[in-house]
Amino acid sequence: MATDQNKFQAIISHCKEYGFIFQSSEIYDGLSAVYDYGQYGAELKKNIRDYWWKSMTQMHENIVGIDSAIFMHPTIWKASGHVDNFSDPMIDNKDSKKRYRVDHLIEAYADTLPEAEKDAVIAGMEAFLKENDYAGLKQFIEDKKIVCGVSGTANWTEIRQFNLMFSTQLGSVAEDASEIYLRPETAQGIFVNFLNVQKTGRMKIPFGIAQVGKAFRNEIVARQFVFRMREFEQMEMQFFVRPGTQQEWYAYWKEERMKWHKSLGLKPEHLQYHDHAKLAHYADAAVDIEYSFPIGFKEVEGIHSRTDFDLSQHQKFSGKKMQYFDPEINQNYIPYVVETSIGLDRCCLMVLSESYEEQDLSTPEKEDSRVVLKFPPKLAPIKLAILPLTKKDGLPEIAKELMADCKKNFYCYYEEKDSIGRRYRRQDAIGTPFCVTIDHQTKEDGTVTVRHRDSMEQERIPLASVKEMVMKSMMD
Amino acid sequence: MATDQNKFQAIISHCKEYGFIFQSSEIYDGLSAVYDYGQYGAELKKNIRDYWWKSMTQMHENIVGIDSAIFMHPTIWKASGHVDNFSDPMIDNKDSKKRYRVDHLIEAYADTLPEAEKDAVIAGMEAFLKENDYAGLKQFIEDKKIVCGVSGTANWTEIRQFNLMFSTQLGSVAEDASEIYLRPETAQGIFVNFLNVQKTGRMKIPFGIAQVGKAFRNEIVARQFVFRMREFEQMEMQFFVRPGTQQEWYAYWKEERMKWHKSLGLKPEHLQYHDHAKLAHYADAAVDIEYSFPIGFKEVEGIHSRTDFDLSQHQKFSGKKMQYFDPEINQNYIPYVVETSIGLDRCCLMVLSESYEEQDLSTPEKEDSRVVLKFPPKLAPIKLAILPLTKKDGLPEIAKELMADCKKNFYCYYEEKDSIGRRYRRQDAIGTPFCVTIDHQTKEDGTVTVRHRDSMEQERIPLASVKEMVMKSMMD
Repeated sequence: MATDQNKFQAIISHCKEYGFIFQSSEIYDGLSAVYDYGQYGAELKKNIRDYWWKSMTQMHENIVGIDSAIFMHPTIWKASGHVDNFSDPMIDNKDSKKRYRVDHLIEAYADTLPEAEKDAVIAGMEAFLKENDYAGLKQFIEDKKIVCGVSGTANWTEIRQFNLMFSTQLGSVAEDASEIYLRPETAQGIFVNFLNVQKTGRMKIPFGIAQVGKAFRNEIVARQFVFRMREFEQMEMQFFVRPGTQQEWYAYWKEERMKWHKSLGLKPEHLQYHDHAKLAHYADAAVDIEYSFPIGFKEVEGIHSRTDFDLSQHQKFSGKKMQYFDPEINQNYIPYVVETSIGLDRCCLMVLSESYEEQDLSTPEKEDSRVVLKFPPKLAPIKLAILPLTKKDGLPEIAKELMADCKKNFYCYYEEKDSIGRRYRRQDAIGTPFCVTIDHQTKEDGTVTVRHRDSMEQERIPLASVKEMVMKSMMD
Repeated sequence: MATDQNKFQAIISHCKEYGFIFQSSEIYDGLSAVYDYGQYGAELKKNIRDYWWKSMTQMHENIVGIDSAIFMHPTIWKASGHVDNFSDPMIDNKDSKKRYRVDHLIEAYADTLPEAEKDAVIAGMEAFLKENDYAGLKQFIEDKKIVCGVSGTANWTEIRQFNLMFSTQLGSVAEDASEIYLRPETAQGIFVNFLNVQKTGRMKIPFGIAQVGKAFRNEIVARQFVFRMREFEQMEMQFFVRPGTQQEWYAYWKEERMKWHKSLGLKPEHLQYHDHAKLAHYADAAVDIEYSFPIGFKEVEGIHSRTDFDLSQHQKFSGKKMQYFDPEINQNYIPYVVETSIGLDRCCLMVLSESYEEQDLSTPEKEDSRVVLKFPPKLAPIKLAILPLTKKDGLPEIAKELMADCKKNFYCYYEEKDSIGRRYRRQDAIGTPFCVTIDHQTKEDGTVTVRHRDSMEQERIPLASVKEMVMKSMMD
């Protein structure tokens, strides 16, 4: 599928204009690769987060949730391999002093070439990266005469590893301070609490532990809006299984997670699996679920069969047994783990991309158009807009009574200014599935006009059935 | 009210034993002043967070929520005063190299004195601190012959300021890296987004912006369980008002927030106001809401009339106008702000303290006791335990049908092992308000036994009315 940069830019602009997502610290000219969620974005993100949390924990008797801290003991990141291996190869131009991620430097160069040459350059780069052959890769850059965009020279340093974890000092600066990291993933908070949860929760294998929370990666070239940020939110679930059964659970979660994405109202043709050709050293199977963003198919979620790597490493580094006694087979073992890991910010961008539509509504008489966000009702920031036709004749009073009744159950919006048509369009732009208009007929027969966002159709229904209609729509 | 260290310790143990709160990184011997929420703690915390969020945003037409990043532009903390003023006075012992917060060092010394002398020492210290007279304070320490607990000597350094913000490096370590801070409060994320939200949300003054999120403070002596942590979660709301009306809104929110605390089921006599005698330089009124913890009355929430200090500072440091045009009076002005700021972790500890009860249930025939957490149903991690009396005779099937029906609506727990009495006690210990037992009579007449947590009373009700009973209880 072709990429559509125009649509991507239009979504970014729409997010800013309608209070979904703002550049962080915008009045200070922004902070690179960090974003803030505005009033509607915060609700959308919360609705997706809550929906994931409920579907993982409340709906599964054998999965519980935890909320572990961002700060963790620094040895955890030695055990997990992040201190030694969580890094990108970087190169500096000696003249401009500008630093590049090597793959990005070569990709940018490749983009300037005809298609066939481009593919050859990328393949060449990947061969060196696979072997961690940085001397060879530097030679490759020099052979191709790749230059710095700032200085225009090919005067490069050696290629070096740059760790992506943020570090800070915990405690006072005196002898008791220690360097700690901001977690680059939430998963380790689950692994180190594995036995605490299993024992206090009386969990029996197979069981899962879910978590939502912030993670931080010092990406050198962060880009593509909220797709790759330095501060982001993960929703991860680690499923602990008996060794030998991991492939069947991997297959189960691979299918289960695809169903979840479809339950967000995403078109099946916008979703695909991408099997990892090259596995991480700790994995025995891995697949991505990719979504067809306007910028192409990109990873939203990963399902990984992580073996007993993490728990074994923590057993080794902490000196504490990370074993489970399985009463069914009367054996102690370190469980195997199947992980589902999804980016919440990417998930927001996915739902925004799927929902965003520019519609030409022109008639022979009049040019007209609208932008509508076709969120599923359960994810929409506002579920119902309550609009008295005029500010007088007791209509606002009826509207406010409905508001008071409904807002205990779901998020409503009240507005009495401007023409009904303009009010509808503003609700379309923030994705509100239902608008209800209170007019003079309401006073006579107790009915209201419901205007449906997607079809723009209007119908009269009893005022008394509005609440139930909205609540029913949220259950889908 | 006397403090009850035993009760406090019992609550901490209970939290660990029943999966509410674990020491962070426990298998690595812990990370000081950082805690992880276990399976029931995470649900309790989420329920309190969601209840606050709903009561602030969904229930108030003129308050919206945002979700701004932890990372912010570093100049924001210059503007807010945190770079220059957010620090504690520290002193080092030259022999032991141990560092102390000066007030803690003197308080620990004062605690060893008779009551009258103790008060005089504290008063003396406070006089020096008020004047920022550190030379005088050092002399005071030497005069009192206060010694280091490790070296036993009074060989002290000068007193110096130690900033409480955590810092880290954003970007690569080359020329484009910059030092940023982990936010020490969420409020500034609201202030710098004030105009974005006001304009895109078409907000009219008075209006509020709410936010929940992590904040970080490098407390030198962090203590008292989750009461004072280095990583914690805040729930803040900034209410923007016309200058001159701040006192009336301050009075409004002072009352409104106390009502909210009472709506959590807290006894009125466990809550009190504490007016700030000494105001921060930017405030024109400030009050704490204190709760009677087992360790005494302590601050849970602050309500502060912050004037136009923050917005004015951001206007000055960013060079961007932070003004609002008020159509009612046809004037531009920088709004005044009334803030409500509550610690989510403290709120969890408050609800745990209020709910925790050890009960002696002994009869002349038998010694017996229980620990029960009397959570209000809306905050309880698990709302309903579904317990088939035996594992056979089709009872589990009926129980699982009820489970499938209920779990879409609220968090349920299913258990078929052990005696009913033991199962009840385990649910008491995690605060589940209702247990439902499916027995042989259920098959005959479609009724079940409901056992109420607080009264321990049992009654038979129709199976078909269980769901409604639980959902109704959650609305209170």
